[in-house]
Amino acid sequence: MNASRVEAFSDGVLAIVITIMVLSLPHPVGGTFHALHAAAPALLAYVLSFVYLGIYWNNHHHLLKTVTRVSAGLLWSNLNLLFWLSLLPFVTAWMSENGFAPATVATYGVVLVLAALAYTIVQSVIVADQRPDTGLRDAIGRDWKGKVSLLGYLASIPLALWWRWGSVALFAAVAVLWLIPDRRVETYLLGRPDEG
Amino acid sequence: MNASRVEAFSDGVLAIVITIMVLSLPHPVGGTFHALHAAAPALLAYVLSFVYLGIYWNNHHHLLKTVTRVSAGLLWSNLNLLFWLSLLPFVTAWMSENGFAPATVATYGVVLVLAALAYTIVQSVIVADQRPDTGLRDAIGRDWKGKVSLLGYLASIPLALWWRWGSVALFAAVAVLWLIPDRRVETYLLGRPDEG
Amino acid sequence: MNASRVEAFSDGVLAIVITIMVLSLPHPVGGTFHALHAAAPALLAYVLSFVYLGIYWNNHHHLLKTVTRVSAGLLWSNLNLLFWLSLLPFVTAWMSENGFAPATVATYGVVLVLAALAYTIVQSVIVADQRPDTGLRDAIGRDWKGKVSLLGYLASIPLALWWRWGSVALFAAVAVLWLIPDRRVETYLLGRPDEG
Amino acid sequence: MNASRVEAFSDGVLAIVITIMVLSLPHPVGGTFHALHAAAPALLAYVLSFVYLGIYWNNHHHLLKTVTRVSAGLLWSNLNLLFWLSLLPFVTAWMSENGFAPATVATYGVVLVLAALAYTIVQSVIVADQRPDTGLRDAIGRDWKGKVSLLGYLASIPLALWWRWGSVALFAAVAVLWLIPDRRVETYLLGRPDEG
Repeated sequence: MNASRVEAFSDGVLAIVITIMVLSLPHPVGGTFHALHAAAPALLAYVLSFVYLGIYWNNHHHLLKTVTRVSAGLLWSNLNLLFWLSLLPFVTAWMSENGFAPATVATYGVVLVLAALAYTIVQSVIVADQRPDTGLRDAIGRDWKGKVSLLGYLASIPLALWWRWGSVALFAAVAVLWLIPDRRVETYLLGRPDEG
Repeated sequence: MNASRVEAFSDGVLAIVITIMVLSLPHPVGGTFHALHAAAPALLAYVLSFVYLGIYWNNHHHLLKTVTRVSAGLLWSNLNLLFWLSLLPFVTAWMSENGFAPATVATYGVVLVLAALAYTIVQSVIVADQRPDTGLRDAIGRDWKGKVSLLGYLASIPLALWWRWGSVALFAAVAVLWLIPDRRVETYLLGRPDEG
Repeated sequence: MNASRVEAFSDGVLAIVITIMVLSLPHPVGGTFHALHAAAPALLAYVLSFVYLGIYWNNHHHLLKTVTRVSAGLLWSNLNLLFWLSLLPFVTAWMSENGFAPATVATYGVVLVLAALAYTIVQSVIVADQRPDTGLRDAIGRDWKGKVSLLGYLASIPLALWWRWGSVALFAAVAVLWLIPDRRVETYLLGRPDEG
Repeated sequence: MNASRVEAFSDGVLAIVITIMVLSLPHPVGGTFHALHAAAPALLAYVLSFVYLGIYWNNHHHLLKTVTRVSAGLLWSNLNLLFWLSLLPFVTAWMSENGFAPATVATYGVVLVLAALAYTIVQSVIVADQRPDTGLRDAIGRDWKGKVSLLGYLASIPLALWWRWGSVALFAAVAVLWLIPDRRVETYLLGRPDEG
């Protein structure tokens, strides 16, 4: 089994997750701009989750290009990641339906933490599956962006309970951090002569 | 990273967006032809958006065939395009649920404007990523169809507020314009000896 | 542009259409077998449409293997076919929600007629796009199955208005007819030495 | 027709089935942790079905790698499997909406039985389609895991009517059994020198 099937299935799930969120967007009640304005928080939550899923797709993409062996560990750690990402539409809808209530924002942060941990596990499984001399471990290196993000998500959980908009701002700040592509892995891939 | 993953993900999202709209079609209340007739405006809106998404899929297809290098700029400008297209089912449902109310038709026009601008950005990113001597910039040329469409969408926004069916007719007219395939890029591709 | 992108997009849309029907299945009210029994007509309609979409996927599959040139006509006639098939979940849900009311069964027949005509158009476009000496036209030949099906769908429309279960039986009979794979095209493909 | 189209279509359907379940998750009423807690049974049912679909995707994956000839029997037996798996979101939602009522848990078991039988049929069709000397039949061998699972599902049906949580525990136990990948087929594939 090569990695292309894993990529294809992951792409399928991520494409569906990113798209079905729009089905949960509550339709504005009445055909006026005022009604649309009332739907603005839901749209904001949609944008946030769309960007997060875009980031995961992007990084997942780069990461799977480094796979040389598809193990059972990779399949299951990848499904675990997809599971947590599949909960994003659920918490997004819950958060926006309840006007970003503290408990919903905190739960959104919990799902981000668990997705980030799942991503780290996939990364570790790929490194462990490879021959030790490929340098991928070094390429991933200290992973400061991953660590900063995780700290951000963790901080957002208690923060949500007394200043929820602070948590939302934190989510947005981490997203902006990731919009810069993952140079570490990209540089590693360019350094391998046998890949395009 | 080659363009095939970007194509596959975009195809996935577009296939889902074009299909989930049918989930938002309000089911006729009662099993009579009269009930079906009452659902006709919703079906009309569905047809319109289906055709628009078909047009985008078609042109996106042609455009991505010209990609020679997948940059971070391409990934993010493409996700931006997919974002605006993913809002089409939302505005389609809102418009049809409210009997093509002026504000809903105007909002539909706004989404079309933003999707058209996003497409233009993707196009510019691809041209900028290429070596300057490939001729793609000339092939895209003056892009009169894109400019006419954008003007049509822009005009439809204020028009919707006093004559909404005029805007809907404008949407339909622009769609008919695009049903003719994009010869510019097609001709360019045929002119490149190293592509099928 | 080769046919694989058209296949991939069609596969995506058909996979989504066949699957989202389950979202429209009305959930039995209450957790008893009696409640499940009341949902039986809806499940019957789901089975019928699932089989029809399976048949279309299957035949579409065989047909697209004969494509040698992807024209604009093919792209649009294929989108037209996907459009009518995308309405199947809509009419399936409407039919099952209203206990197979005559108007809903007749409308189901209308959609089947239009999908069958759309399929015929795709077939004609592929034949017209090919060099005349490939023999595909002969391979498709008299297309008795297609003609019998179309007659069956056409007959089901007036029949539904006075004996709706007769129409449903007709739908099932045509489906059974198609469960036998399309030997014509299969034989043609086997006869071409340059394809697997 | 090679197996890659069958894989792609199956992957598409499975990716959609595994993802749309989240659309049926009832949104907690109110933005509190208490409301989220009330949604816990629905989340539990979602996790269970997500794991089962992950298992089927995984095993289906391995199985289709052994296909050397795509017959009509394979296409239809595969669609039959996809049909039963597509009902999982339906029974999952019904079960969780009714607090794991006995009839709903028993029906979940029935769907698992029918999906398991459908998988066995696909397996038999693949073995029958191959040349008899390939050893796949021996590789699948006694299939003790498949038999134990089927017994578990069968036992869960009557069990649900007097101790529903026992059935749920049985579902979970069988899932854990399958999280260990199918070594039989994997070993067979590794033994074939002409495959990666």
